[in-house]
Amino acid sequence: MKEIEFYFDFISPFGFLASRKIGALAEKYGYSCRWQAMLLGVSVLKVMGMKPLASIPLKGDYQFHEMKRNFRREGIVLGRSLDAPPAYPVLAGRAFHWVEHNRPDLAERFAIDVFNAYWIDDRTIDNPEILGSIYAALDQAADPLLDALGNGEGDRLLRAAVDRSLSLGVFGSPFFRINGEPFFGYDKFDQMEAWLASGGW
Amino acid sequence: MKEIEFYFDFISPFGFLASRKIGALAEKYGYSCRWQAMLLGVSVLKVMGMKPLASIPLKGDYQFHEMKRNFRREGIVLGRSLDAPPAYPVLAGRAFHWVEHNRPDLAERFAIDVFNAYWIDDRTIDNPEILGSIYAALDQAADPLLDALGNGEGDRLLRAAVDRSLSLGVFGSPFFRINGEPFFGYDKFDQMEAWLASGGW
Repeated sequence: MKEIEFYFDFISPFGFLASRKIGALAEKYGYSCRWQAMLLGVSVLKVMGMKPLASIPLKGDYQFHEMKRNFRREGIVLGRSLDAPPAYPVLAGRAFHWVEHNRPDLAERFAIDVFNAYWIDDRTIDNPEILGSIYAALDQAADPLLDALGNGEGDRLLRAAVDRSLSLGVFGSPFFRINGEPFFGYDKFDQMEAWLASGGW
Repeated sequence: MKEIEFYFDFISPFGFLASRKIGALAEKYGYSCRWQAMLLGVSVLKVMGMKPLASIPLKGDYQFHEMKRNFRREGIVLGRSLDAPPAYPVLAGRAFHWVEHNRPDLAERFAIDVFNAYWIDDRTIDNPEILGSIYAALDQAADPLLDALGNGEGDRLLRAAVDRSLSLGVFGSPFFRINGEPFFGYDKFDQMEAWLASGGW
């Protein structure tokens, strides 16, 4: 098995940045890539007991500067402001994991479309109708997804996925596992490339 | 002016890793490099209100794994265990800033020797005699340095340097400023190289 697991929170700017590059890296080295939504609100705030990044003196300001620098470098023009209040990502996470469970072949495409809806088109991703319309645009019937968002199935799938990610030590966004070897952070692309090219060290 | 400022805490493993690479990067692009000791205990614990990294669930374990992976990649054989209790870095910081103030031409060399004493030779760097002997090995008289460690001058110089670093937004180790542009973390070498090669973006 040659697999990269890619963990992200839809409202994480560094997760979005990583989502634009991970597919090409996996493909270059013949790895499959398994996309997995997680929730920073659970790992960082609840499990780790930390404060939201933006509220941490010095580091909050620095990270904001670094985010903007990264988007500038990648030439990505955002539709929403990086300092706008973030959406509540739970509904998008439930929708993703329902898609991942039922149509794993569509999971990456669905995640990319949700990321773009949020960051490029500034759409409200904590809304079932919008999530349903994103899924429908993949030539799928939206009703089963909307049912899963309403009847607790999406909630159950997301909780199981978040529990699994925590049990693997995943705490941030983006977080990667290359055949189980963990790499945290958007800055790790060069190290991951070296790891993939060399077979590890 | 083409200057890279390099901020580090002597007891930071990532700071030590960075200390082995920053000189070559600066030289490659014709930059001078100004080494500056800082104190994580002031920035992270006091100003930012965070807990020590090792005590943070999930992240502490991950960072420990990443440290070991980085040292392995660089082929650095440590004389002290990464999970041994850290030394108290204040005395080494005072000694460094006294050297930096009085003999700036020796500051980088002194810092490298203190780093190696601690990480490679597992010496106790919170000890005036050892710091004096490291300075004496540079063909210098140790007495003025020992006086500065005893009479408050070293303390004053370190406090001023830490205050200055905080005023510039420096919070971690390693932290770099390339003509004022901030980069945090050991993982930033590739981004810094791209910044230097391109003139920024």
